Amino acid sequence: MFKTKCLVTVLALTGSMSVMAQALPTKAPAPADNPTTKEKVELGKMLYHDPRLSSSGTVSCASCHNTMLGGDDNRGGSVGVGGQVGGRSAPTVWNAAFNKVQFWDGRAASLEEQAAGPVTNPIEMGMKSWDDVVARLEKIDGYQKAFSKVFGKDSISKDNATKAIAAYERTLITPNSPYDKYVKGKKSAMTAQQVRGMKKAVELGCTGCHSGPAFNGAGTFQKFPTIKNGYFEAQYDLSDDKGLAEVTGKEDDENYWKVPTLRNIALTAPYFHNGKVKTLDRAVQLMAKLQLGVDLEDNDIEDIVAFLHALTGEFPKQEMPKLPGLDDKTFN
Amino acid sequence: MFKTKCLVTVLALTGSMSVMAQALPTKAPAPADNPTTKEKVELGKMLYHDPRLSSSGTVSCASCHNTMLGGDDNRGGSVGVGGQVGGRSAPTVWNAAFNKVQFWDGRAASLEEQAAGPVTNPIEMGMKSWDDVVARLEKIDGYQKAFSKVFGKDSISKDNATKAIAAYERTLITPNSPYDKYVKGKKSAMTAQQVRGMKKAVELGCTGCHSGPAFNGAGTFQKFPTIKNGYFEAQYDLSDDKGLAEVTGKEDDENYWKVPTLRNIALTAPYFHNGKVKTLDRAVQLMAKLQLGVDLEDNDIEDIVAFLHALTGEFPKQEMPKLPGLDDKTFN
Repeated sequence: MFKTKCLVTVLALTGSMSVMAQALPTKAPAPADNPTTKEKVELGKMLYHDPRLSSSGTVSCASCHNTMLGGDDNRGGSVGVGGQVGGRSAPTVWNAAFNKVQFWDGRAASLEEQAAGPVTNPIEMGMKSWDDVVARLEKIDGYQKAFSKVFGKDSISKDNATKAIAAYERTLITPNSPYDKYVKGKKSAMTAQQVRGMKKAVELGCTGCHSGPAFNGAGTFQKFPTIKNGYFEAQYDLSDDKGLAEVTGKEDDENYWKVPTLRNIALTAPYFHNGKVKTLDRAVQLMAKLQLGVDLEDNDIEDIVAFLHALTGEFPKQEMPKLPGLDDKTFN
Repeated sequence: MFKTKCLVTVLALTGSMSVMAQALPTKAPAPADNPTTKEKVELGKMLYHDPRLSSSGTVSCASCHNTMLGGDDNRGGSVGVGGQVGGRSAPTVWNAAFNKVQFWDGRAASLEEQAAGPVTNPIEMGMKSWDDVVARLEKIDGYQKAFSKVFGKDSISKDNATKAIAAYERTLITPNSPYDKYVKGKKSAMTAQQVRGMKKAVELGCTGCHSGPAFNGAGTFQKFPTIKNGYFEAQYDLSDDKGLAEVTGKEDDENYWKVPTLRNIALTAPYFHNGKVKTLDRAVQLMAKLQLGVDLEDNDIEDIVAFLHALTGEFPKQEMPKLPGLDDKTFN
């Protein structure tokens, strides 16, 4: 895996408003082999919300990445089949289309690749294999028809199911936050405190990593914590999970993580990869201390938190999908 | 508890088409102290879909009574917090507004009363008390505002939350099934086989208990199995759960159950109170044998199953609720 590390120090020094001044696009680019179409998005929405993609029939993508909430589950560890609790906090699905890599450790290169993972993870959705998922979907007439419309006859497969889910996820974009309105010229969209917080965030170097319109560093990785601190470590176990190194096996990658988006962060407590930090003010304090070596004053923390609230966007209205029935029987 | 037992034998003898010929109403009556209003329904829809009404933050009303499916979870026992599995199969919420009593054992006299139950059931949603639920909701600004609009200032309470949920549930009606169109005069809406199956069901006496527009006996109870059968009992444990007697403690009430609706039954496999019968044809065979003492021929079973498919209605389109955020922190 090629890892781009973000250059905090350099960008902190050259940090300016121009680094940040980008509104969130209202459309996400799709890969050439998976163009976004209305019918594909509809199919993806069905699959995304269908708990029958899990072994117990109780866990869907939406269980942990709930679009009725901030795109996550507001939990530390997420809960999969059989009440099992995972070790990482579910990242938000809102604007995930703008991440260059997916999962906290960035091990998936696309939304399509990501969508395949949790379904067969034994503590998440617990299906034994994608062959089993396909066999289930093939028993449901409504899915046969929906896949046929989008991909052609007899087309239910892992590849097509994950393509449809990814196409749906590319529509999950939250534009028109106060920040977006502000950078488009409506200066009254942010409060004076939010503007102060934004400037402070740039000055500190937060946007060295959290760069770009999604404040997610465009696929870069960063070590967290960068600066060791026994006190916070004892409180929040931030170094226990080795992050990228768990994927690559390389010592150099220990505690490296994908830079996560800051969009809608006021809605996605608790914070960090293990979800052990419960409030945004504490998260801001820790980031400054552990990444930038700065002890922030309380008023600066408050200003930055106010700014982060300005990144909460508008959520598009969604109609609930009608999930096709299995027609008077159960799977087994 | 006053128990109305349905009079199978009498109605079986007098059974006629007129017993059945009632289309499903498109509106459900509301109690005088809980009129249905648009804003109340919206609030109820939010609460119904909010997993933060469970101790783990993972189980909402919709988890087991999923309106994207047939109003249930297509499981035998439903799954609550911590992966715990309940002993009864979740009844459908679609058209529950037309049940005179709620729960399989009919222990709740209204939708409002029913809505209060699962939230504090330790193996369902697991909240310690409704006081804890109210305390959580009070921390969420969006709920403060939504309750204020509907019930007045500082009005978050168990009583009002369950009223709102019940108001939402009263909108979950599925009219315009092939059967409804048929009884309104469009004879082509049902197939010849479905008409045969309907007549057979009346002739056998099924509609003695499954009477009225929702085919739910208007609040009557029936013993199940009425006729003992060791073979089926060994297969499906149908008598283990004592039903109404678990509520009343009376021997006379053993194995009595609320007559469940047949509306959308093709979508709600598996069947019966314990969800141990996986297919509708088997369920029909067992009902005839255990309730009416009849060994049905295969073709009669097929006809009745075909008729039951004619009870699948039209599901209203629903917009997903946006659940209000807790604003940059978690509950604890």
